[in-house]
Amino acid sequence: MYYFTALITLAALLFYASLGYDVAKARGRYGVKAPATTGDAHFERIYRVQMNTLEWLVIFLPCLWLFAFYVSDLGAAALGAVWIFGRYLYKQAYVAAPETRGFGFTVQATAAAVLLIGTALDIVLRLAMGD
Amino acid sequence: MYYFTALITLAALLFYASLGYDVAKARGRYGVKAPATTGDAHFERIYRVQMNTLEWLVIFLPCLWLFAFYVSDLGAAALGAVWIFGRYLYKQAYVAAPETRGFGFTVQATAAAVLLIGTALDIVLRLAMGD
Amino acid sequence: MYYFTALITLAALLFYASLGYDVAKARGRYGVKAPATTGDAHFERIYRVQMNTLEWLVIFLPCLWLFAFYVSDLGAAALGAVWIFGRYLYKQAYVAAPETRGFGFTVQATAAAVLLIGTALDIVLRLAMGD
Repeated sequence: MYYFTALITLAALLFYASLGYDVAKARGRYGVKAPATTGDAHFERIYRVQMNTLEWLVIFLPCLWLFAFYVSDLGAAALGAVWIFGRYLYKQAYVAAPETRGFGFTVQATAAAVLLIGTALDIVLRLAMGD
Repeated sequence: MYYFTALITLAALLFYASLGYDVAKARGRYGVKAPATTGDAHFERIYRVQMNTLEWLVIFLPCLWLFAFYVSDLGAAALGAVWIFGRYLYKQAYVAAPETRGFGFTVQATAAAVLLIGTALDIVLRLAMGD
Repeated sequence: MYYFTALITLAALLFYASLGYDVAKARGRYGVKAPATTGDAHFERIYRVQMNTLEWLVIFLPCLWLFAFYVSDLGAAALGAVWIFGRYLYKQAYVAAPETRGFGFTVQATAAAVLLIGTALDIVLRLAMGD
């Protein structure tokens, strides 16, 4: 049960873990020693990519699973794949030039919004029908 | 099943997402360009409100759902509403004057603590009764 | 059901909450007033311990529960206890000397990796067997 949503969850977490690995590598490359998280503009981009993904992961994962539970496992997994793809575009753009990060951001935010709104509508309809 | 807890979860996530939107707007208003997160004291307040809410969201959501699962869906949703209200008070106070953030903080921490302790007691009782 | 995983979840959240309490105390001790998170090297260590634990908590908790659901409640709880122990070692080492944090980090990362890979293998096997 929920096999597709579970596998997309693991893929999203692996992608997110890779961003933490990027930060660890960037500490060496740009000479930013722990516990500092500032001091080099390029390091700060890589760090903000990880942090922003964390900020959205906590929105994405609950919505993904509520959608899987109330609406559809396969639909949740498909929207989850779009979310990961949006986060990947965001990372590539942010590291190259922070002002170009908008498109990837919008892709992932849209996927999360569809998961959230889809779940809300489904539950409201169920309650309205006396379920 | 768990309709009330699910709806409160979505409300909490929408509130949390609105804090990220506040940070994005504050970047423009206070001239703090990404990836920087420092440089203007008022921007930093708005950023810390988002971060502190993130720090607590990862405590709140698991406790909310464990309470819903083991104790009560409606009880979890009611405590979840208190948590959101506490976070709202915290935000208003922090942005106005950081040293006044204590009351809202205590309200949300208490709601989270009741969810956590209630779940723990329920599980320990079940185990003690050989469930 | 899932009693052991639920109790380990609450233990992990209590440990994580204690790190936020350490940050609040360190604000007073090292004179770092909110909303600032920099300005004293020792405060920054304590803050980074909390943040890094947050960064990993969002990987750990979903993997813990997927492992509990698909593989084993008791196995998940045991690996969860190892994760908490690794995070404790990480905290002690980081506060004493940031460059010694590697061992605790590896312990907790290994526990999280076993949870993630174990879940992935279990699901792939189930799908391969037409479950």
